Amino acid sequence: MSKVDWIAADWGTSNLRVWGMSQSGTIVESAESDCGMGKLSRTDYEPALKALVHPWVTGPTTVIACGMVGSRQGWTEATYATVPCETSPSAFFAPDVADPNLDVRIIPGIRQMDPADVMRGEETQIAGFLALNPNWDGVICLPGTHTKWVHISANEVVSFQTFMTGEMFSLLSKNSVLRHSVGNGLDDVGFKRGLDEAMARPERLAARLFSLRAEGLLSEQDPDIATGRLSGLLIGAELAGAKPYWLGQQVAVLGAGPLAKLYVDALATQSVPAIQVQAERATLAGLTAAYRKYKE
Amino acid sequence: MSKVDWIAADWGTSNLRVWGMSQSGTIVESAESDCGMGKLSRTDYEPALKALVHPWVTGPTTVIACGMVGSRQGWTEATYATVPCETSPSAFFAPDVADPNLDVRIIPGIRQMDPADVMRGEETQIAGFLALNPNWDGVICLPGTHTKWVHISANEVVSFQTFMTGEMFSLLSKNSVLRHSVGNGLDDVGFKRGLDEAMARPERLAARLFSLRAEGLLSEQDPDIATGRLSGLLIGAELAGAKPYWLGQQVAVLGAGPLAKLYVDALATQSVPAIQVQAERATLAGLTAAYRKYKE
Repeated sequence: MSKVDWIAADWGTSNLRVWGMSQSGTIVESAESDCGMGKLSRTDYEPALKALVHPWVTGPTTVIACGMVGSRQGWTEATYATVPCETSPSAFFAPDVADPNLDVRIIPGIRQMDPADVMRGEETQIAGFLALNPNWDGVICLPGTHTKWVHISANEVVSFQTFMTGEMFSLLSKNSVLRHSVGNGLDDVGFKRGLDEAMARPERLAARLFSLRAEGLLSEQDPDIATGRLSGLLIGAELAGAKPYWLGQQVAVLGAGPLAKLYVDALATQSVPAIQVQAERATLAGLTAAYRKYKE
Repeated sequence: MSKVDWIAADWGTSNLRVWGMSQSGTIVESAESDCGMGKLSRTDYEPALKALVHPWVTGPTTVIACGMVGSRQGWTEATYATVPCETSPSAFFAPDVADPNLDVRIIPGIRQMDPADVMRGEETQIAGFLALNPNWDGVICLPGTHTKWVHISANEVVSFQTFMTGEMFSLLSKNSVLRHSVGNGLDDVGFKRGLDEAMARPERLAARLFSLRAEGLLSEQDPDIATGRLSGLLIGAELAGAKPYWLGQQVAVLGAGPLAKLYVDALATQSVPAIQVQAERATLAGLTAAYRKYKE
């Protein structure tokens, strides 16, 4: 077994994932916990990290971290870079660490002043995607709770826009009156129908949403069709709003799961072919590129 | 003090409100409780009603009720009338009642098959508004958790459309990431800005929503401005979607509170003058008209 030369950390709101990496960039160890930023006060970060990486640390070790760990409520605030900016980190921010063996460096997020927007974590996935695909120009879509559309040109983030689509899907399917009408599956035909409706008339979103409930009452619509239609309505409204981003561009969707697949399928209906890249692979490539830059 | 001749009941998901009425239509008594449909199983309805009206009942008494009490999960299912239909009740539905003095009659809701839509309770407010304004033609807007736009012609409901705007406002301001950015007040300038943004580009709703969070982070925007803008964005997107209803029509907004005022103000920006009618007054007029029809 190789030795852990440095540690990569993806530290979000809900989870902490760490990888023990060799100098050559292969994964030697990995671990994760639910010690996300949302649960931690400032003094909890070092113990939360050491709980996972303690066995790997035998001497001075650099930890490169991205995500909400660098937010104002995080371990230390890593001040945003401002667009337009390079995708590789403009600076590395060091929180207070008691253990002399740990040299922790946090990658800052990126902000846009007008229209106001922010990202933390996604900038590292984007840098990783560009490390894997040098000199790629186009638009990167990062599906998630807050889906981001990012315009990349000449290795710079030119502009980006965040849509609350994922969070709205979660709230509507779990906490609204629609919870009585949706199911656990997601029907493709329902998705396609919702997508077409919302792309054609995005302004009717709030009315189409209630019709899911009414159809459940009047015709006992299949719950999985309703789930598909809910997802299609929300992603369709997003695609209508993000059209200035994807129209006539080459598009990359970062994510391997079913949500990323929905975006690829939705873009295909608009004759936009999108390449799909596993998000974890992009994260690790981004953290590795950042480590190399830090050690330069 | 006059005698209670009959009882009017507005029985929704969350609350039960009852009025003891004289034969001439004046209010003799009133009471309310939180025994809404959402908390009751079938055998709970009669005790919940009697807990409020017991002191008023000295002999055979008719109770006319509207709202979710007539839903499938209610006291008894009052089968929907189907549009186009008259606003006065097509039938009265009698649940099982043990007390021989109580003759309970439930007013059915109205449904629309395509696009699928339903209402329960609003049909009685509409009938009451038309009792107060005979032969009125136009569009009635009923703001609420699920706001309804209703096209009225020749005393008939021609068509209607429900928007989940109120429920989305509640979920986004209380349960989403925006809860960190909104306040308790609602700033008028923020409302107007959100309204204009959403009327102009309703398809960007999910992106504008996230910008409220980003503005909170980047420029420490005043929380009451953010609340105003959130409300303006959602009502603006609704007005854009409901344009076929209000454009070139005379409009009545049923509701006296601040929410109804926001709709009146929003319509005014589109040069649509709207009359405003107190919702409770319309409900009571509708229940009174229904009682008279039942006794005919």
